[in-house]
Amino acid sequence: MNSNLSTTIQELSSPESYNRVYHEPNHGMPMPSVEAIKEMVTLLREIILPGYFGVDSINEEVIQYHTGVNVEKLYDMLSEQIKRGLCFDCNMSFVEKTRCEGCERKARNIAGAFIQKLPEIRRMLSTDIQAAYNGDPAARSIGEVIFCYPTVKVLLNYRAAHALVKLGVPLLPRMISELAHSETGIDIHPEAQIGEYFCIDHGTGVVIGATSIIGNNVKLYQGVTLGAKNFPLDDEGNPIKGIARHPIVGDNVIIYANATILGRITIGEGAVIGGNMWITHDVEPGAKAV
Amino acid sequence: MNSNLSTTIQELSSPESYNRVYHEPNHGMPMPSVEAIKEMVTLLREIILPGYFGVDSINEEVIQYHTGVNVEKLYDMLSEQIKRGLCFDCNMSFVEKTRCEGCERKARNIAGAFIQKLPEIRRMLSTDIQAAYNGDPAARSIGEVIFCYPTVKVLLNYRAAHALVKLGVPLLPRMISELAHSETGIDIHPEAQIGEYFCIDHGTGVVIGATSIIGNNVKLYQGVTLGAKNFPLDDEGNPIKGIARHPIVGDNVIIYANATILGRITIGEGAVIGGNMWITHDVEPGAKAV
Amino acid sequence: MNSNLSTTIQELSSPESYNRVYHEPNHGMPMPSVEAIKEMVTLLREIILPGYFGVDSINEEVIQYHTGVNVEKLYDMLSEQIKRGLCFDCNMSFVEKTRCEGCERKARNIAGAFIQKLPEIRRMLSTDIQAAYNGDPAARSIGEVIFCYPTVKVLLNYRAAHALVKLGVPLLPRMISELAHSETGIDIHPEAQIGEYFCIDHGTGVVIGATSIIGNNVKLYQGVTLGAKNFPLDDEGNPIKGIARHPIVGDNVIIYANATILGRITIGEGAVIGGNMWITHDVEPGAKAV
Amino acid sequence: MNSNLSTTIQELSSPESYNRVYHEPNHGMPMPSVEAIKEMVTLLREIILPGYFGVDSINEEVIQYHTGVNVEKLYDMLSEQIKRGLCFDCNMSFVEKTRCEGCERKARNIAGAFIQKLPEIRRMLSTDIQAAYNGDPAARSIGEVIFCYPTVKVLLNYRAAHALVKLGVPLLPRMISELAHSETGIDIHPEAQIGEYFCIDHGTGVVIGATSIIGNNVKLYQGVTLGAKNFPLDDEGNPIKGIARHPIVGDNVIIYANATILGRITIGEGAVIGGNMWITHDVEPGAKAV
Amino acid sequence: MNSNLSTTIQELSSPESYNRVYHEPNHGMPMPSVEAIKEMVTLLREIILPGYFGVDSINEEVIQYHTGVNVEKLYDMLSEQIKRGLCFDCNMSFVEKTRCEGCERKARNIAGAFIQKLPEIRRMLSTDIQAAYNGDPAARSIGEVIFCYPTVKVLLNYRAAHALVKLGVPLLPRMISELAHSETGIDIHPEAQIGEYFCIDHGTGVVIGATSIIGNNVKLYQGVTLGAKNFPLDDEGNPIKGIARHPIVGDNVIIYANATILGRITIGEGAVIGGNMWITHDVEPGAKAV
Amino acid sequence: MNSNLSTTIQELSSPESYNRVYHEPNHGMPMPSVEAIKEMVTLLREIILPGYFGVDSINEEVIQYHTGVNVEKLYDMLSEQIKRGLCFDCNMSFVEKTRCEGCERKARNIAGAFIQKLPEIRRMLSTDIQAAYNGDPAARSIGEVIFCYPTVKVLLNYRAAHALVKLGVPLLPRMISELAHSETGIDIHPEAQIGEYFCIDHGTGVVIGATSIIGNNVKLYQGVTLGAKNFPLDDEGNPIKGIARHPIVGDNVIIYANATILGRITIGEGAVIGGNMWITHDVEPGAKAV
Repeated sequence: MNSNLSTTIQELSSPESYNRVYHEPNHGMPMPSVEAIKEMVTLLREIILPGYFGVDSINEEVIQYHTGVNVEKLYDMLSEQIKRGLCFDCNMSFVEKTRCEGCERKARNIAGAFIQKLPEIRRMLSTDIQAAYNGDPAARSIGEVIFCYPTVKVLLNYRAAHALVKLGVPLLPRMISELAHSETGIDIHPEAQIGEYFCIDHGTGVVIGATSIIGNNVKLYQGVTLGAKNFPLDDEGNPIKGIARHPIVGDNVIIYANATILGRITIGEGAVIGGNMWITHDVEPGAKAV
Repeated sequence: MNSNLSTTIQELSSPESYNRVYHEPNHGMPMPSVEAIKEMVTLLREIILPGYFGVDSINEEVIQYHTGVNVEKLYDMLSEQIKRGLCFDCNMSFVEKTRCEGCERKARNIAGAFIQKLPEIRRMLSTDIQAAYNGDPAARSIGEVIFCYPTVKVLLNYRAAHALVKLGVPLLPRMISELAHSETGIDIHPEAQIGEYFCIDHGTGVVIGATSIIGNNVKLYQGVTLGAKNFPLDDEGNPIKGIARHPIVGDNVIIYANATILGRITIGEGAVIGGNMWITHDVEPGAKAV
Repeated sequence: MNSNLSTTIQELSSPESYNRVYHEPNHGMPMPSVEAIKEMVTLLREIILPGYFGVDSINEEVIQYHTGVNVEKLYDMLSEQIKRGLCFDCNMSFVEKTRCEGCERKARNIAGAFIQKLPEIRRMLSTDIQAAYNGDPAARSIGEVIFCYPTVKVLLNYRAAHALVKLGVPLLPRMISELAHSETGIDIHPEAQIGEYFCIDHGTGVVIGATSIIGNNVKLYQGVTLGAKNFPLDDEGNPIKGIARHPIVGDNVIIYANATILGRITIGEGAVIGGNMWITHDVEPGAKAV
Repeated sequence: MNSNLSTTIQELSSPESYNRVYHEPNHGMPMPSVEAIKEMVTLLREIILPGYFGVDSINEEVIQYHTGVNVEKLYDMLSEQIKRGLCFDCNMSFVEKTRCEGCERKARNIAGAFIQKLPEIRRMLSTDIQAAYNGDPAARSIGEVIFCYPTVKVLLNYRAAHALVKLGVPLLPRMISELAHSETGIDIHPEAQIGEYFCIDHGTGVVIGATSIIGNNVKLYQGVTLGAKNFPLDDEGNPIKGIARHPIVGDNVIIYANATILGRITIGEGAVIGGNMWITHDVEPGAKAV
Repeated sequence: MNSNLSTTIQELSSPESYNRVYHEPNHGMPMPSVEAIKEMVTLLREIILPGYFGVDSINEEVIQYHTGVNVEKLYDMLSEQIKRGLCFDCNMSFVEKTRCEGCERKARNIAGAFIQKLPEIRRMLSTDIQAAYNGDPAARSIGEVIFCYPTVKVLLNYRAAHALVKLGVPLLPRMISELAHSETGIDIHPEAQIGEYFCIDHGTGVVIGATSIIGNNVKLYQGVTLGAKNFPLDDEGNPIKGIARHPIVGDNVIIYANATILGRITIGEGAVIGGNMWITHDVEPGAKAV
Repeated sequence: MNSNLSTTIQELSSPESYNRVYHEPNHGMPMPSVEAIKEMVTLLREIILPGYFGVDSINEEVIQYHTGVNVEKLYDMLSEQIKRGLCFDCNMSFVEKTRCEGCERKARNIAGAFIQKLPEIRRMLSTDIQAAYNGDPAARSIGEVIFCYPTVKVLLNYRAAHALVKLGVPLLPRMISELAHSETGIDIHPEAQIGEYFCIDHGTGVVIGATSIIGNNVKLYQGVTLGAKNFPLDDEGNPIKGIARHPIVGDNVIIYANATILGRITIGEGAVIGGNMWITHDVEPGAKAV
């Protein structure tokens, strides 16, 4: 038996086997770490929503200490993971490596810029929390919303991941949003643009595609898809990357459960889309599609 | 860079920033802890379904020791978290604080009353397990159902959370049911009323609203929504809280995948609702809506 | 209070209470362990997709060491859990126990045979990864797909679980696929047969039943169900187990979001099923059902 | 076999067996926790010697955050453990319990008073560190002393434990000093009085009794005992507790390895005691006993 | 660099390198585990001294549950480790392996017999605790002795290890006593015979050799050696194993700090040995050697 | 109370308080980490003594995998900690920092050179193990010695630390030897030079100073000191660092318990030093000092 194991180990360790799923580390840099990303999301929750996550007795006296420790740790971890992400994506050869030395500095600069956006992320998220509370007759308090509503978790991840997208960080934003997808069943691509006071109720099965644009005060229910209708194919029959292909949703729109909105169409301001609807053309502002 | 971090830390630590998402601990009491709730759910599984969760070799000789240790620990943790939940919700000022001293005793009384309901919770859950086994041609044994079926996990959480609701515990029931939502994709509000021998097959995307009432021997498939059709609004345009707005489902009803049942309507005993159906009116007993 | 706790502990420890949810360990063997299964899935990911999971800086020099340690550990854990699974399912009495002594050897043989299938599992999965990358305009690199796409996680679990099914292992395959169901919202029964270059996009809510047969180069979107239409009942009114009752899906088929395909029907090669479709009859090869 | 286990379990759980080693919790209060004490010592090291213990990259910007978090945590843990210690020692019956309600407040007051002494404890310890560095030709830097010299660890514990003794805390000081005894082989009773700039070289086997008084700038080597010569016995033949029975050591004294100094004698200022010496009478100031 | 690492790895993995420090596992059995032994010592402390170690709020109601869980776990771990120890020592070849099948049963029998001795081990230890309390003017309570005195920890390990010696267990007793040696600086060979009401004060540096015999009510201070004077050598110049070569110490003896007692001599009942004494001949009963 | 805490936190965070015990990180490099050093010692034990430490079932097939993983991990950790140690000791200002860039490469080179010495460290240690086994009538097997004898642990640490000293590594060697001091009570300075086949029996209290030189086949018992007699003082009254001041011990010497050997004297080949002896002058080869 043991010699069979050894044979398989050799086979699995040969490039012919692993090359299809292998990324040779560029410049000897370790790959981004899923575990580190998870830990950073935990830190983000503790920083943005103190008391609800992390230490359970935050008050005015101590909030600065916990925030300080958490922000410093987040900054260090983020710098490291951004650097890894930049190297993962890098196409320069070892010969060109001298230009690569700026990556560490670049990563630290981006991490620092991200940290500066945290107060605005918190402000945006607080409007989302308010929206969830106001919109749900079953919600007893803001606290219950923060503790229990998946919309809070998924939007915290989204708003942080989207900020990283705008700072030009590769890989990490998608890893952050997929963590929330796994936790909540809500799949928001970090490149999507979403306004304030946004709420997803229940949420399981919601999909929001990469080029979606969503206004302020929009509410989605479970199972809603903002997807692509079809993809122009390239010469090899694969979809062309990078084309705007998802819906634009105006301010004050409500989309009920399991509705499917496909293609680069516009749902006008104040429209209401009924449950289970299948929408592939523009909807007028204020219209009710049921 | 470091001075930028310090500036952001100060900004995040100022009341103007955190007040929107901050709950000042009442009476200096720590807030309920999500981690503690998770640990209690683990204990509940070990107590209710011994051998399947926790220690992997339970027999008649040792079951009492493990049950004893787990019940004692659950009682202590539950007392603490209930107390925190009561304080979280409390509106009394520090001046009135003397009346608050009964909270610790009240929390212990509730925790004790909950412990006494565990045998009944196990009995109810055992009918749910039987229903899942009987209803699924793919199920090979009761053991497979307990180990692998999300309906077992979500109903254990629901039945425990619902017992806490009936004992008047704030916040915790919703936290417990949201844990199961995250784990299974099934969102059962703990205030819903659900009879015996209940089964949800596959389950991802199921939503059961707070005022739903479900009879005995009911089966739901994935993606079923028991939701609200619309909410009466108050003067400020927000939904009025506490109104019965979800369906009543009679005994022996089957609702197939992705059906959506909305509003305070009644699905009569023995009715069958087809997949993808959109139901907003009463369904007669024994009827087939397809 | 304490004496009430003791009374409940005694009640929970009495056979009348626990017997409905209790599996007496056969031959004194511990039950399969959910935690061990989780750890084995982690090992599988580290073996199949080195660098992305586990150690973050794998290169040609060290891959053999990590693979060796992980494979050896997987082999030991798997042998142990298969043995437990065989005993869990075993109906022999203690008197017949001598025949049971072969179980340990049998378990080791199966575990060894499974290990030998790992290179093929990796090869199959690499086609799935390629399919996800080619089919999604939002995917920037193979690495992003491996790190972030739930289809990779769920198919790794499925392909391993299916290999165990074919080796005659009870219980464990379903436990492995349910772990992925919880993580991704995608519920693939390990007995289903699925060809190469398979992809599930977004995926939340997908259900693939036990007797489904899926060809090569098939793509599903979120919320698709490959389910049973109805079950022949036995004399006691419960579904008869083991009948082919789920769809056969030909090569090169695409099924869009939330489509429901029910019964032992055939979706012909190259067919396209539109979103939200409800299909209970055969679909011709090349047909578009929208 | 199992029934034998049960019999022994019953025997071990009967008061006849456990009463000799059992402390009935007073007023239902848990007992002090060795694990909590260990964690507090870790916190103390991180607070007093930042960078060397705990977070490994402390600088001027972040020291306040880490110190704040650590001090707050230490204060909470210490309050809890002091309360437990007070209750452990308490002789009041349940009937008198109302007077016991002040214990929580008392514990918090003591913990707060202890926190205020931390800067002075650090100052004292810094003189000890300087003494170790100056006195050892093998020491390359202050940093090496802090990282590697057992005298630093044992004196940090001693100086903290002694501060608790002076604040009237029962039990905990001895638990703290015993932790250092186990770690370093140096046994300093927390009631001993020790001046500044104190150093123990190597240290294994050193014993400093409860009523010892040691001046400034004293140095001990390994194996030195400052012990009691004999104990006056009470009527039952047991030593009378609380009598001054250990040496007084003046300023600037050096005591070489394995010397034994017994009884309430005085080692005069500037005296030098040679290795292996056995001293039971006063030594003149400036004398050399070799 | 990496190829150098590989060369060293190959060298370290070659039998020529590792054979000098390698024990080929007999019959494929894993070796005893230091970590498991540590965990068993922790369990022993929780069982023998409930409340002081492990759960911090034991009372009459719950002691049986904790004792039950701990004893069951200890029994399982001990059975496993004894089996490994028996195999480690076994000289039978694979050909004779059939006789080896009794080892698992033998290990379980020994573990069961050891469990039955736990009440007597607790009783013996309680006399040691009493001796420490009565003999030390600095001891404030029995509780302080149990929490803080190294004599309690080392004698608990010794009394358990000695019980295993008498049951014929190889290797494990020495591993258990070495754990206490590391923790307390007190080195008691588990084959030594020690009576009741035994106490070691401070203790660092104490050595009690394998063939020592100690009566009741004996007290040792730190640094005391009960050692061998010399060893008869065999033809190869190495000491002959198994000869009685350590002292016999009668009842009611006191031996002060750093005294060294060597050879198979007898210290008569009631004798007192002064500190730093070097004794290699018999001491009369009641004599004072100072 | 809380404002008092804040005041103390500010005080502890001010340079006036922390400067005496603070090392400003050079070049922003984190300080060496005690926890990392501990983990490296664990790795060393697993590499040098496979099966006894770490994985408990090593055989010829798998030893290369475990050795490979452990050596790679050790190399990475060691490179990092050596780099930190070099920076800790570095006196260059930030302005000169460009020369500092070679530190990472230097650290990697040293770590690689150390790895290459592991086979020789194992060989040396195997002679020490043989010496302990041959010399102790109580030792039953080589395995017992490796599992249980503190001499093995302390010499493994010493031989590794000494190899680092010879490679010019600052700080780390002393940290490694102090870990063994804490664990065994044996304090060997890593700069001491010690030959093959060396053994320390029992060992608690042994001290071997930095400039000691010990030949082959030497045996020490517990409490032996190889120390300095006195130190030449510099103008400020502190000992001058770096002078040879500890004994030279020839081959085949035995030194019995608690003997104290002081100063740069020579103990001639084959000499025997009796217990409790106080030696400050040369001893002739073959002499017996008793």
